[in-house]
Amino acid sequence: MIIVFKLGTNEETLGKVKELVEKQGIEVSVTKGAQQTIFGLIGDTSTINIGQLEMNDAVEKVMKIQEPFKKANRAFHPADSVINIDGQKIGGGHFTIIAGPCAIESEEQFMTIAKAVKEGGANFLRGGAFKPRTSPYSFQGLGKKGIEIMEMAKKETGLPIITEMMSAKQVEKFGDRVDVIQIGARNMQNFDLLKEVGKSKTPVLLKRGLCATYEEFLMAAEYIMAGGNENVVFCERGIRTFESWTRNTLDVSAVPVIRRKSHLPIVIDPSHAGGINWLVEPLSRAAAAIGADGITVEVHNNPEEAMSDGQQSLLPETFAKMVDKINVLRKVMSEIDG
Amino acid sequence: MIIVFKLGTNEETLGKVKELVEKQGIEVSVTKGAQQTIFGLIGDTSTINIGQLEMNDAVEKVMKIQEPFKKANRAFHPADSVINIDGQKIGGGHFTIIAGPCAIESEEQFMTIAKAVKEGGANFLRGGAFKPRTSPYSFQGLGKKGIEIMEMAKKETGLPIITEMMSAKQVEKFGDRVDVIQIGARNMQNFDLLKEVGKSKTPVLLKRGLCATYEEFLMAAEYIMAGGNENVVFCERGIRTFESWTRNTLDVSAVPVIRRKSHLPIVIDPSHAGGINWLVEPLSRAAAAIGADGITVEVHNNPEEAMSDGQQSLLPETFAKMVDKINVLRKVMSEIDG
Amino acid sequence: MIIVFKLGTNEETLGKVKELVEKQGIEVSVTKGAQQTIFGLIGDTSTINIGQLEMNDAVEKVMKIQEPFKKANRAFHPADSVINIDGQKIGGGHFTIIAGPCAIESEEQFMTIAKAVKEGGANFLRGGAFKPRTSPYSFQGLGKKGIEIMEMAKKETGLPIITEMMSAKQVEKFGDRVDVIQIGARNMQNFDLLKEVGKSKTPVLLKRGLCATYEEFLMAAEYIMAGGNENVVFCERGIRTFESWTRNTLDVSAVPVIRRKSHLPIVIDPSHAGGINWLVEPLSRAAAAIGADGITVEVHNNPEEAMSDGQQSLLPETFAKMVDKINVLRKVMSEIDG
Amino acid sequence: MIIVFKLGTNEETLGKVKELVEKQGIEVSVTKGAQQTIFGLIGDTSTINIGQLEMNDAVEKVMKIQEPFKKANRAFHPADSVINIDGQKIGGGHFTIIAGPCAIESEEQFMTIAKAVKEGGANFLRGGAFKPRTSPYSFQGLGKKGIEIMEMAKKETGLPIITEMMSAKQVEKFGDRVDVIQIGARNMQNFDLLKEVGKSKTPVLLKRGLCATYEEFLMAAEYIMAGGNENVVFCERGIRTFESWTRNTLDVSAVPVIRRKSHLPIVIDPSHAGGINWLVEPLSRAAAAIGADGITVEVHNNPEEAMSDGQQSLLPETFAKMVDKINVLRKVMSEIDG
Repeated sequence: MIIVFKLGTNEETLGKVKELVEKQGIEVSVTKGAQQTIFGLIGDTSTINIGQLEMNDAVEKVMKIQEPFKKANRAFHPADSVINIDGQKIGGGHFTIIAGPCAIESEEQFMTIAKAVKEGGANFLRGGAFKPRTSPYSFQGLGKKGIEIMEMAKKETGLPIITEMMSAKQVEKFGDRVDVIQIGARNMQNFDLLKEVGKSKTPVLLKRGLCATYEEFLMAAEYIMAGGNENVVFCERGIRTFESWTRNTLDVSAVPVIRRKSHLPIVIDPSHAGGINWLVEPLSRAAAAIGADGITVEVHNNPEEAMSDGQQSLLPETFAKMVDKINVLRKVMSEIDG
Repeated sequence: MIIVFKLGTNEETLGKVKELVEKQGIEVSVTKGAQQTIFGLIGDTSTINIGQLEMNDAVEKVMKIQEPFKKANRAFHPADSVINIDGQKIGGGHFTIIAGPCAIESEEQFMTIAKAVKEGGANFLRGGAFKPRTSPYSFQGLGKKGIEIMEMAKKETGLPIITEMMSAKQVEKFGDRVDVIQIGARNMQNFDLLKEVGKSKTPVLLKRGLCATYEEFLMAAEYIMAGGNENVVFCERGIRTFESWTRNTLDVSAVPVIRRKSHLPIVIDPSHAGGINWLVEPLSRAAAAIGADGITVEVHNNPEEAMSDGQQSLLPETFAKMVDKINVLRKVMSEIDG
Repeated sequence: MIIVFKLGTNEETLGKVKELVEKQGIEVSVTKGAQQTIFGLIGDTSTINIGQLEMNDAVEKVMKIQEPFKKANRAFHPADSVINIDGQKIGGGHFTIIAGPCAIESEEQFMTIAKAVKEGGANFLRGGAFKPRTSPYSFQGLGKKGIEIMEMAKKETGLPIITEMMSAKQVEKFGDRVDVIQIGARNMQNFDLLKEVGKSKTPVLLKRGLCATYEEFLMAAEYIMAGGNENVVFCERGIRTFESWTRNTLDVSAVPVIRRKSHLPIVIDPSHAGGINWLVEPLSRAAAAIGADGITVEVHNNPEEAMSDGQQSLLPETFAKMVDKINVLRKVMSEIDG
Repeated sequence: MIIVFKLGTNEETLGKVKELVEKQGIEVSVTKGAQQTIFGLIGDTSTINIGQLEMNDAVEKVMKIQEPFKKANRAFHPADSVINIDGQKIGGGHFTIIAGPCAIESEEQFMTIAKAVKEGGANFLRGGAFKPRTSPYSFQGLGKKGIEIMEMAKKETGLPIITEMMSAKQVEKFGDRVDVIQIGARNMQNFDLLKEVGKSKTPVLLKRGLCATYEEFLMAAEYIMAGGNENVVFCERGIRTFESWTRNTLDVSAVPVIRRKSHLPIVIDPSHAGGINWLVEPLSRAAAAIGADGITVEVHNNPEEAMSDGQQSLLPETFAKMVDKINVLRKVMSEIDG
C-alpha cells in the first residue's frame, strides 16, 4: 500500500501517520521528493482501512498494491484448479457442458429434457428447484419436490446435478443432495449464503453479480474458500449496461482476466447473457474460442410453454447441433495451442 | 400488454397466438393495419411470460402496459403512506433524520455517538450489528452483542433503532428487537430474505441495489408487502456507474420518480452515495430540496479509527451543524410548497 | 507518479526502467521493501505514458498522483472564476438562469418565448439554431436564420444569447455573433471543435458527455483553455446509466466534486437530465440546494407542437413559478452559508 | 407506433389526439378494451415526436414499432453488403485483418511496421495521422505528413490504407487520399462529421461510441448513408462500464445483433476493447468465432517507446503468430457452417 501526501505536509503530521500505521505491525518506507512525500507500507496491509487514511487532511491518496484475495489468487497457486465431480472434470483444459431447463416443472418435463441433453452431449444436468423471480407473483419453483426429481434424473442419466440455492436453510437441507450448488447473480454478495456454502463440501458454481467488478467476483469466491470449500467455479453471465436490446452484456474478457488472476475454472452462461435463443450459439462459440472452461445452457423441450426463461432456451435438437460444432471448435483450439 | 406481429404474418399463426393467450383467460383485441397486426391483451397479464411470446417467429415485439407492482403502486393507493414508529413518523411531509455509526464497535462507542446524534437532531438511531463486508477478512460486526447495545441506547435516548439484517435467521431471532430492519443494497434481490421480512411486523428500510432499476426496486418492496408487511421505506443510496471519483452516483431523480409511482416514503443515504465526508452535506441538501422523506447519515466520534466506513462518517458536531441547516432549508421548502 | 514492481524484480531490470524514466528529465526516488521495490517519480510526469510502463513485465502497476489538468485546476487558481458576460455574471455565488426553447422554430416562436422567459426571471436566452439529432431525418435547425432570430431577440430583451455549435466552421462563421457558445454532450470530446472554440474569445458552456468521467470533463475544459479561451462553464446534464425511466441520470455530485477540483463555474441542465417536464422543478431545486452556479431550462410556449424535446419543456408560466421558488431557496441558502 | 391511453380517458381527448396524428398523414386504428384504449398508428411514423405525445396527460405510454433506420436496415436489403476496396473485400464471409500502429510517428517507423504486418497477414494498413487525445498536452499526430507516409507505405506494400479523420476539413482535404476513413468512437455522434463523410466516396469504418446503444450505432451509419455514402463498416471497440481492470468492455453480442438488424459488415477492435496486449489474442479469437467480419489490431515494432497506446500493441511477430491461429480457426468455422 502506498500513501501519497499533499504538497508541503509537515514533519509532525507525517510522524503521526507513520506511528498510526506502525502500530498495526506494518513497516513504513519513506520517499521524500522535492515537494511531496510518499509512504510505502510493507507487510500485510489487508486489514488497513484505506478510507480512514484518506480522511486525513494531509493525505492526497492511498493506493492498494496487494490484491485482497489470497486463496483464489493464482500468485499463490500457479496451477489451474481442476474440480472433479463424480468423474466429470471442470477446469484444466476440459470443456464442461452444463444443460437443462431454467425451472424444473414436472418429473416428466425434467426427465425428457435430462435424457435429451445427455444425448446431445451435456456432461452436467442443471435445473431450478428454487427460483429467484423479480416478481413475488411469478412461479417460485417446486422446491423439495424439484430436488427429488433431479435425483431421479441423475440416477437415470448418470449426469451430476446442479441447482441454485438461495438461502442458508436450503443449503443445510439440500446442499449434500446435489453435486454442485449454484449461487445466483443476485446473491453473489449475499455474504450469509456465501459463508454457508463455504461450510459445505459440495462444489459451488458462483455466478457474477449484475454489476460486480472482477475484484468483487474474486472476493465472493474468497468468502467461500475462506470457509473451507475450495471447489469454486466462476460463471460469467453478462453484466448490466445501458444496452437494452440484449438482456445483459456478456463480458468475454472476464475469461482471460479471471484466469490470469485466479486458478479457479470459469464457465460462461450464454443463455442469461444474451437472453434470447438465437444468441446462444454465437455466444457459446465465443466462449469456446476465448478459452472458457465450459458453458451452461438452458434447454427446454417446449420453450413456448416454459414457466420461466422460455425465450432464451434451446430445443434439445438445436442444443445437440450446437454442441457438435462447439466440439469441433474446441478440438481445433487445442491443436492451435498445442 | 401489446403484441406486435411481423409484416405479413398469416391468419393461421395469428389464430394460434390468439388461442394461446385466450387459454390464460385474457381477452384479445385485434388491430389490423394495412400490413401489420397488433393484439391488445385485456385482463390480468401479470403472469404472462413476455419472453415466450417473443420467441414466436411471427412476433416482432411484446410490450408491457400494466405495472407489475400492485401493493406498492400509488395508482391503487393515492395517499402517501405514513409509517409511525414509536411516535416518530416517516413519510407524508415529515423529514426523518437517521444517524449513527456504520458499525457498532463497543458499548462505549455506540452510547457516546447515540447521545451525540440525539443532541444533534436525529430522530432515529442506526448502527450495524451484522456487517456485510466485501472481504471475509474484514470485521463482521458484533452480532447479538451489537443488538443488546442498541437496546441499551434506545433505553437511554428514547430513539427508535435501525439495524441491517442479512439472513432469514437473523430476522427470526432479532427482527422484533429493533424498530426498523434494514435490507442492504447487496440483498435487495435476496428474495428469501425479502420473504422473511415480509412475514415480520417490523418496518423495513429497503436500500436500492447497486444496479437495480426503479422497477426492480419497487418489485422488491412488493415482495415484502405481498408477504404481509406493508411498512416499507425506500432508501436511495447511489448506483454504480463508470465514475470512480465518488463511491457511487447518487440518483436524486429516484425521489420524484418513486414518489409518482408509489405511496411509500423514500429517504436518501448521502454517506454511501458519495463515500466521502465532505460530500455528505451537499448531498443532504439536495435530498431535502428534492423532497426526500429523510436522510440516513453515518456519524462517528472518531472517524479516523472507525472499524468501517470512517472516511464517509461525520463528526457529531459537523452532523449537528448540518442538521440545523437542513432544518432551515426544510422549513423554507414547506413554505414554498404552501 | 509511482511505479510498483513485481515481487523479486532484479537489479538489472530496475536499473533499465530507472534509466528510461530519467531520460525524460524525471527524478526517481527508490523505495526498497523486503520484497518489493517502488519508484516515486518526481517532476513533470504529464507526458509519461503509463500504459507503456505497464507493458514492462517487471512492472506490477503504475499510479498517477498529479492531476493532468492545469489551467482548470483549483490548486493553481484557488479563487472561483467569475465569467462576466454583458453584465451578467456566472460563478462566484451568482445563480444564473438560462432559458429558452430546444430549437428555434420561427421568429414568432422565439420572440414570444424570449420575452416570456425574461419576464419569468431568466438572465440568459438559449435556443438551438444547429440541432444535433440522432436521426438524419429529423429537423436539423434553422441554421444561419436561427442566429439572426437570436440576435433580434437579444436586441428586444437585452438578454445575452447562447447557442450550440457543432463544427469548427460554425464557430468561425457565427462564434462572435453569440454571447456563449454551447458545446453539446455528444461533442464533449470532439477535440477539433474544442480547439476551435479555444481560439475564440466567446465564452463556452461545456456539457458533460453521456459517459464522460469527471476527469475527462475537466480535460475537455483544459483543451479549450489551453487554446487561449479561459471562459469555460461546465454543465452537468445527466449521464447514461442502466435506468431507462429517466432520459439520463442527473449526477448532482458533479457540482461539489468539480467545484473542489476546479475554479470554473458549473450549472445543471434539469431538462435533459430528467427528460420529462415534471422532473424539471425537483431537479432544479436539487441543483440550487447543492450549490450549482445556475440551471439551463427548456421552455416552450406550445410544448405539444415543439419540433424537438417538447416533452421536457416547461410552459412559460410554469417556468416563472419555478424561478420564484428557486429564488426563495437560493436566498435561504446564502443565509445558511452566511 | 402505439399510443396507450390512461384508464378512463374520455372520448373528447381521444378524438383530439386522433386528429393531431391524422393531420400528419397517419392512419389510426383504435382498440378499445374494457377500460383502456390503444391507438395503432399506421404509416410512416418516423417523424412523429414520441416525447410530445407522451406529454399529453391522457397518454400512458407511446411505443415505437418501426425501426428508425432504413438504408442500414437488413429488412430492406436482405443480402450482406460486401465492400470492395482495391480488390480487398470486407463483409460477406471474408475476414479482414487491419493492422498498424496507433500513431504514425515517422516514415521509418511506419514503413517497418507496414511491411511487417503485410508479412504477418494483414490485408489493410492502419495508422493515425490525426490523433484524438484526451489531453491537449499529448502528441496530436503528424497530420498531413502522416498521410504522405501512409501513401508511401501503400505504394510499397500494396495494402489499402485506413486513417481516422476528426473534422470536416480533414475529410475535405484528405478524404480521397486514403482508402477508408475511420470515424472514432468519440465522434460517432459528431453529426457534422458524419454528414461530411456521407458526401465522400471513400468507404467509412465507423467505431461505436463509448456508451452508444446499438440503435444509435445504426443511426450513425444511417447518417452517412443518407448523405450518399453506402460503404459503411461497423467497428465494435468495447463500451464503457463500471469495470476498470479492462480499458473497455468488449460487447461481442454486437456482432450477431448488428448482423441481424443490418446488412453492413462489422469488425472488432480487440486492442482498444481490452486495452492491454495480452488480451488482444483471446478477444480476436472470440471475434473470429462469433462471426465478425474482421479485426483491427494495433501493432508496433517497439511498443515500449510508442508515442500512444504502446501497452495495447502487439509486436509484429506476435501479431503474425496470432493471425496464423485465427486463420485456422476461421477455416474450421466455415467448415462448421458449411
